[in-house]
Amino acid sequence: MDFKQKIRVVQDFPKEGIRFKDITTLMKDGEAYKLAISNIADLVTGLDVDVIVGPEARGFVIGAPLAIHLGKGFVPVRKSGKLPGEIVESAYDLEYGKDTLAIHKDAIEPGQKVLIADDLLATGGTIATTIDLIEKLGGIVVGCVFLIELTYLDGRDKINGDYPVHSLVKY
Amino acid sequence: MDFKQKIRVVQDFPKEGIRFKDITTLMKDGEAYKLAISNIADLVTGLDVDVIVGPEARGFVIGAPLAIHLGKGFVPVRKSGKLPGEIVESAYDLEYGKDTLAIHKDAIEPGQKVLIADDLLATGGTIATTIDLIEKLGGIVVGCVFLIELTYLDGRDKINGDYPVHSLVKY
Repeated sequence: MDFKQKIRVVQDFPKEGIRFKDITTLMKDGEAYKLAISNIADLVTGLDVDVIVGPEARGFVIGAPLAIHLGKGFVPVRKSGKLPGEIVESAYDLEYGKDTLAIHKDAIEPGQKVLIADDLLATGGTIATTIDLIEKLGGIVVGCVFLIELTYLDGRDKINGDYPVHSLVKY
Repeated sequence: MDFKQKIRVVQDFPKEGIRFKDITTLMKDGEAYKLAISNIADLVTGLDVDVIVGPEARGFVIGAPLAIHLGKGFVPVRKSGKLPGEIVESAYDLEYGKDTLAIHKDAIEPGQKVLIADDLLATGGTIATTIDLIEKLGGIVVGCVFLIELTYLDGRDKINGDYPVHSLVKY
């Protein structure tokens, strides 16, 4: 399937000059959505994974069904204030200012092998912060998988270290 | 499986007096999460459904895997400003002030049969607003399904009309 035909490109969202990749047009097509999750799972065949981690909110629509598909648990990474239990946090730079992501302290046990899943690899800021959170808990990041990668933003370079990066659709 | 044993109750979150039902402890258990989605799908066996709608963000971790499980499309309902395409909006009352939810105008075609999925039925405000959005687009709500229902908050009463309500775990 040509997934790019299912992804709508919205000009100037969220701000001028950005050509936003809108995956809602893919997700509302049951056949395309199911095949995308199945193909993403194929990308990580052979990886030894204990648990999937996905950042809110669009990471949930990839990571949660991927976790079910693989029979693994799913751990959400959220903005501060959203998780009810004890958390660890990590700040990351935005264009103006900072934002903070959080994970439950007991979400990952030391030594657990973690696969990160998200809808989009752009500049890699969210994923670098998610890796930081997982490693603070002693988890081992065995890979990162994305529905979409914007290769021209070089997000892979921001994901330092030996983290295999897989993506289904490349722009 | 006794899903209540997998759901953590956090006292006084997000504010004093609330006993928050934390589903992250269920989701991180791959077996429990997969069984929960499968059992939620069983609750809606026999319903004629074209598409699943789920409100952000926790609705995504139930609705998205349920959509994949049933082979249906998934449509997100989001806070204003998050969806890139043309939207319709609906405001709902919070304890203090109002909040607004949005759906893409082209997400649902008139006459499509819609199943709403969310993690939690509490007072029913989010779901009533989600029903309003779907009906503005001409969709037909054939049911609402939840991982958890707080029966003592009478959320079912807020979901006016003949919308079948199903929930897996009741408090």
